[in-house]
Amino acid sequence: MQKIRLGIVGYGNLGRGVQFAAAQNKDMDVVAVFTRRDPDSVRTVLPVKVERIEDMKQYVGKIDVMILCGGSATDLPEQSVQAVKLFNTVDSFDTHANIPAYFEKLDAAAKESGNIGAMSIGWDPGLFSLARIYFGSALAEGSTYTFWGKGVSQGHSDAIRRVKGVKDARQYTVPVQSALDRVRAGENPQLTTREKHTRECYVVAEEGADLARIEREIKEMPNYFADYDTTVHFISEEELQRDHSGIPHGGFVLRSGKSMKGNNFLMEFSLKLDSNPEFTSSVLVAYARAVYRLHAEGKKGAVTAFDIAPKYLSPLSEEEQRSQLL
Amino acid sequence: MQKIRLGIVGYGNLGRGVQFAAAQNKDMDVVAVFTRRDPDSVRTVLPVKVERIEDMKQYVGKIDVMILCGGSATDLPEQSVQAVKLFNTVDSFDTHANIPAYFEKLDAAAKESGNIGAMSIGWDPGLFSLARIYFGSALAEGSTYTFWGKGVSQGHSDAIRRVKGVKDARQYTVPVQSALDRVRAGENPQLTTREKHTRECYVVAEEGADLARIEREIKEMPNYFADYDTTVHFISEEELQRDHSGIPHGGFVLRSGKSMKGNNFLMEFSLKLDSNPEFTSSVLVAYARAVYRLHAEGKKGAVTAFDIAPKYLSPLSEEEQRSQLL
Repeated sequence: MQKIRLGIVGYGNLGRGVQFAAAQNKDMDVVAVFTRRDPDSVRTVLPVKVERIEDMKQYVGKIDVMILCGGSATDLPEQSVQAVKLFNTVDSFDTHANIPAYFEKLDAAAKESGNIGAMSIGWDPGLFSLARIYFGSALAEGSTYTFWGKGVSQGHSDAIRRVKGVKDARQYTVPVQSALDRVRAGENPQLTTREKHTRECYVVAEEGADLARIEREIKEMPNYFADYDTTVHFISEEELQRDHSGIPHGGFVLRSGKSMKGNNFLMEFSLKLDSNPEFTSSVLVAYARAVYRLHAEGKKGAVTAFDIAPKYLSPLSEEEQRSQLL
Repeated sequence: MQKIRLGIVGYGNLGRGVQFAAAQNKDMDVVAVFTRRDPDSVRTVLPVKVERIEDMKQYVGKIDVMILCGGSATDLPEQSVQAVKLFNTVDSFDTHANIPAYFEKLDAAAKESGNIGAMSIGWDPGLFSLARIYFGSALAEGSTYTFWGKGVSQGHSDAIRRVKGVKDARQYTVPVQSALDRVRAGENPQLTTREKHTRECYVVAEEGADLARIEREIKEMPNYFADYDTTVHFISEEELQRDHSGIPHGGFVLRSGKSMKGNNFLMEFSLKLDSNPEFTSSVLVAYARAVYRLHAEGKKGAVTAFDIAPKYLSPLSEEEQRSQLL
């Protein structure tokens, strides 16, 4: 069997996760990792060649799909647009507001090079987006809800760390059980931001810091916390390491609606993930398979999960899919 | 807006459901219902022309997609293969063992006529199949489980009605809660047929019938009940009408697995449906939209839910999908 040859750009939690996930898929082979750091300083979780990001072009013809695992929302779109000029790409771009503009840029670059750029792949955007589109299509009249958590929000944890006197922090987004229950009961409620999620913060303060001020500054922070019921727990560095070192996440997509005759329907998709980046990586690898196959069929341009038929994702043949999974 | 012109073949619960579901979708228009009965004897739930099934060919060019709602597993494949010679079709063929053979037949007929025949559309096969393929692809190492119910099984209800002395019956398939809990806990259990579902039967016996014999014959019936823990309740005709006249169904698809580092992941999709046929109909209508669009792109042949990218199902434009649902 000809394996699908992958490259990994960026080697943080996501990049390591891609390497692990690829090892669980027999048709995948990671050819090289590309980094902005000194390659000699990078220790990989499984043996693989590490290269400077500038040397990517030497791998044209040796890598089928490049998986972009860049660390930040600003790196990712730029790196993808560069990479898609040379390779098929998959990325997990998740800044919702910028998706339309980024799609246009990636699409233009991909069409020019004849490659495919798959964007916003993962679980949200990604599998949750799929639930939203399938649910909304299957049930024309109804309401769709997305709840996140319980899980660590990196962005909110970072925001707390920027508060003066904070040494370290972990923020959990928690769905409100009573809101979930109301949706499941078919009430079709209108839910405010505050009614859907609470925010739980575990904060390590610097010695002698004004805890009351820190708590107030967190709770009043616009965009991040002001619209939520937020609880702040001050804990020791040891407790943070011991109890909050994981990166779990998950959530729920629900659609509740009714037929014209008044019969109720509830559709629900949920994820419970011990490791957010490792699961995202696992989805990225499946979409690398799809991109490889679509490219072989002559497809080019930017694509999202909406554009890709499920058959392209599975390692099974179409006949096996129909007999085993349909 | 040019509406998608639908035809409905067969006018039982499913056909009526399609008519209702189409009315909830602004881009759909039901042109005619085709029946094997005397058209004058058919009363439709919303106004629509009723025609003899033999007169279908007079609608070539006037109907874009024919939705097959034939009553039985034997009617459906034959009617679809006939209809796809004249129209694009969508059906809910659900005899799992015969899917491969039926696919080949439908594919040959559809390719010859230049139409699309979408088969095995609904919730299982259909949305549950999608969950199985997406879940299995996203998580290479793990176990996938499908549980059905609580819901009415028409086939099992019919089987009970064939027992001597039985006037009427309703059978519910019920998932075993403890088995669901073990899967959710990440135990990856090997579950026997008996461990996954129980069967609950509500039976109206003829006057003077031997209830002990009826109960024994039901519980020992091979394929249908012998491999399950079955309970039989004898009730009156009035009770059956009052408490068991609905056709609810639903179920769960779960996949539990882990990353190479040992982190656990749980994916779960569930449906809770007050009316099984009305929900199936609603899914059929969404796939009629997809078939219409794919045919406009020049696609032909048999397809299943696996072959259809989600973007084709949604009434939203691709730009709207990306900005609102991704």
